[in-house]
Amino acid sequence: MIELYNHELSGNCYKVRLMLSLLGLEHELVPVDLIKGEQKAAEFLKLNPLGQVPVLTDGEVVIRDAQAILVYLGRRYGGEDWLPVESESMSKVVQWLTVAANEIQHSLATARLYFLFNAQINLELAQQKAHQILQILNEHLAMRSWLECERPTIADVACFPYVGLGADGKISLEAYPHVVTWCERIKQLPGYIGMPGLLVVTSARRQWLTE
Amino acid sequence: MIELYNHELSGNCYKVRLMLSLLGLEHELVPVDLIKGEQKAAEFLKLNPLGQVPVLTDGEVVIRDAQAILVYLGRRYGGEDWLPVESESMSKVVQWLTVAANEIQHSLATARLYFLFNAQINLELAQQKAHQILQILNEHLAMRSWLECERPTIADVACFPYVGLGADGKISLEAYPHVVTWCERIKQLPGYIGMPGLLVVTSARRQWLTE
Repeated sequence: MIELYNHELSGNCYKVRLMLSLLGLEHELVPVDLIKGEQKAAEFLKLNPLGQVPVLTDGEVVIRDAQAILVYLGRRYGGEDWLPVESESMSKVVQWLTVAANEIQHSLATARLYFLFNAQINLELAQQKAHQILQILNEHLAMRSWLECERPTIADVACFPYVGLGADGKISLEAYPHVVTWCERIKQLPGYIGMPGLLVVTSARRQWLTE
Repeated sequence: MIELYNHELSGNCYKVRLMLSLLGLEHELVPVDLIKGEQKAAEFLKLNPLGQVPVLTDGEVVIRDAQAILVYLGRRYGGEDWLPVESESMSKVVQWLTVAANEIQHSLATARLYFLFNAQINLELAQQKAHQILQILNEHLAMRSWLECERPTIADVACFPYVGLGADGKISLEAYPHVVTWCERIKQLPGYIGMPGLLVVTSARRQWLTE
């Protein structure tokens, strides 16, 4: 059975939940309480020495890092649909895995951390970087329905979550119509799931945090 | 002919030069003057809207981002030696591409930018993060010769450059003996090239910068 070490509010965990759902794969969620610091506990560090969710286990296989997990699920269960193995197509897809792990992580995801968890970050810089990458995404998507390969791939699944959750970091997508259309297109995919109850969970969690 | 849009002092460009050399691939270097801002010029942005080196072209193929270029070269010219396509092995390798693009980039590479180019960054935070990832690498390499697959892969090529260049960011590897041994092992690979003349080039460039 596939198990996902998961936190409900993590966009990187959502990324994997979305991929699992798009592939129609049964799995179990193992909650990791980030507030209590369970991701830094000795038991968890054996799974991921970086002390981060998500981690996915599939029998004896243990994979950390949302992008690497998308590669695993795509290759293992998706044939070549979600991750082509031909050199040019694969590397074009990987370009966007880096954007997800670096540019989007240090802009949209970071701004979201500020508002959801009061993380000590440079909000202005994060928002400035967010608009830079959104502009690039918008121009790229002006002539395309999907990021690469003219079909949905793990590139879209890697980049979509924190873009779609932009509002959590007070980043409006209003100026990026092609990005908005792309988000809507992803939401129409068979098996799509959102992040249900985010606002409810968030306000409960914020209340809990300030108690 | 393969062309690499290159800057002599960029560790991410060096990463690609190293891979090209390990694969014994002929190529031409196209210098991009980062000091003059050529990477933000309209002509270059057509190749890479993110305005960063390296970019690799191979006939009609254009790939940006050091990690994606390693994937391209590995898949196109390396068979399965440098990047296996089996799901578990491939995703294990990709885990380290993310570490190179995120954890190493925002620690060792950033500290280096501070000392080489007087970049405005939080040096203390970068150095602290550098020691965290070096500790993780050291423990991982305590029981292994290579990062994954018991042989050199693009994971090693992606992570080695900024680790090997740690001294440029005043980050000593002294406390990480397994990392040092791994670096030495990489330097023994057939086709290995270093970053020749770095200190010479650097002092000339620094002088130029301060004139």
